[in-house]
Amino acid sequence: MTEPLKDLSRLCVHTMTTKPLSLRQCIDAYVQAGIPAITVWRNVLEGVGAEQAGAWLRESGLRVVSLCRGGFFPATSEEGRRKAIDDNRRAVDEAAAIGAPHVVLVCGAVPGLPLDESRRQITDGIAAVLPHAEQAGVRLAIEPLHPMYADDRSAVNTMRQANDMVEQLASKSVGVAVDIFHLWWDPELEAQIARCAALDALFAFHICDWRTPTRDLLNDRGLMGDGCIDIPSIRGWVEANGFRGFNEVEVFSTEYWGMNQQAYIEKIKAAYLKNS
Amino acid sequence: MTEPLKDLSRLCVHTMTTKPLSLRQCIDAYVQAGIPAITVWRNVLEGVGAEQAGAWLRESGLRVVSLCRGGFFPATSEEGRRKAIDDNRRAVDEAAAIGAPHVVLVCGAVPGLPLDESRRQITDGIAAVLPHAEQAGVRLAIEPLHPMYADDRSAVNTMRQANDMVEQLASKSVGVAVDIFHLWWDPELEAQIARCAALDALFAFHICDWRTPTRDLLNDRGLMGDGCIDIPSIRGWVEANGFRGFNEVEVFSTEYWGMNQQAYIEKIKAAYLKNS
Repeated sequence: MTEPLKDLSRLCVHTMTTKPLSLRQCIDAYVQAGIPAITVWRNVLEGVGAEQAGAWLRESGLRVVSLCRGGFFPATSEEGRRKAIDDNRRAVDEAAAIGAPHVVLVCGAVPGLPLDESRRQITDGIAAVLPHAEQAGVRLAIEPLHPMYADDRSAVNTMRQANDMVEQLASKSVGVAVDIFHLWWDPELEAQIARCAALDALFAFHICDWRTPTRDLLNDRGLMGDGCIDIPSIRGWVEANGFRGFNEVEVFSTEYWGMNQQAYIEKIKAAYLKNS
Repeated sequence: MTEPLKDLSRLCVHTMTTKPLSLRQCIDAYVQAGIPAITVWRNVLEGVGAEQAGAWLRESGLRVVSLCRGGFFPATSEEGRRKAIDDNRRAVDEAAAIGAPHVVLVCGAVPGLPLDESRRQITDGIAAVLPHAEQAGVRLAIEPLHPMYADDRSAVNTMRQANDMVEQLASKSVGVAVDIFHLWWDPELEAQIARCAALDALFAFHICDWRTPTRDLLNDRGLMGDGCIDIPSIRGWVEANGFRGFNEVEVFSTEYWGMNQQAYIEKIKAAYLKNS
């Protein structure tokens, strides 16, 4: 039986969850709402810059959990792959500037490129970024994505594939971000979470819910309790394996983005305490 | 290297692919187009009846490949599970009446019911239907569904899970329908196709394509060549393992259903020869 969540001390919200808000507005709203931690998406750094963002974040007292997102390594040309590696190095620099201990990687896929070839290019890409990341003290978290994104977002679609990659790369700076939206169906999830923890690679835990019906492949995620995922059980699996990090609420939802975001943040807090 | 398809001799079309057409219209149109085989969905039997449908089909000369679909075994009540078993027995009778050697099973799932519990209920449900199926000489083909349908359509989402179930049920009348839309991303697909063939359980092969972007979770499948699936490679895997059955075109597409269906059937034939 998973221990219920009694307070907000391990709650983190992704800036993309409250997409209508700018970084400045996210910081103010989260602090005001008593949310202790934030994951910053790169789009909210545009026009602000990582240095300024870092100053705001340090001054706010918010704990910065991750920078989202790097990745997208596979490409059909050498130049495309090189550009991706350069962009990931910049993501590492931005993470360092805002105080994020890791960059979450949406690893990438190219329609028509065989998935095993994409995975080879992903492994090579991460290996190429690693020295820069290690030097900066920033870790890289491979996020397996749901198989419905295997065409153009990620060729890493199961926990086993992410763990295999972590083993292959053999660096303490490479781990996994477990997102229950992507992995709740994975028949090996519990066993592979244990394997990931044994590898000391369980870097992050993302929560939301799977709606029935899911009306859009991208932007119809539910808040915890809106759908069918047994969130407490999966949280129990990561905690049983020693995970004590934040529970990061990452919800892409056209419906929720249409709400008053202050009211939505209160809804997030209630759903977090009741259904996670 | 997979042998190119030189003619239509192994082409089968699902009635659902040409959803605007009645069974009578499908039969006439497929015969007219030189398509040798048909898979019949149960909706087109409504108002016709399996006996009449069987008479039409025998008279047409079309080969009947499958009846779609049985399954949906899991339920939250004993009564619900019993009704599902009864309905699957009726599907077996309908398959026998139309001359279909097997019923394709979309195994079912219930939002909130743990997936392993759903799989237990599926295995029990198939076991309960089996004596009737064996007596009727109709086989049951488990179709693994894409993980994006794990909430309410099927708790069987990989080839490995289907093969595990086949082994557990240990009957020559239980096998697998491989649908590339559902399984193209499966990292174990090639190996598990070989395992399935070794079990003598490779009953059916369904083709279509995965569009980028896929605009709807249900009804935006592509015709062969519209998307990113390497169809010849997967067809090569089933053929290398001895499969000589039909290549069944199963496309749910609001877009294609909006076309003149005669013109669409010609498009299917061209896509079949060029891109499968």
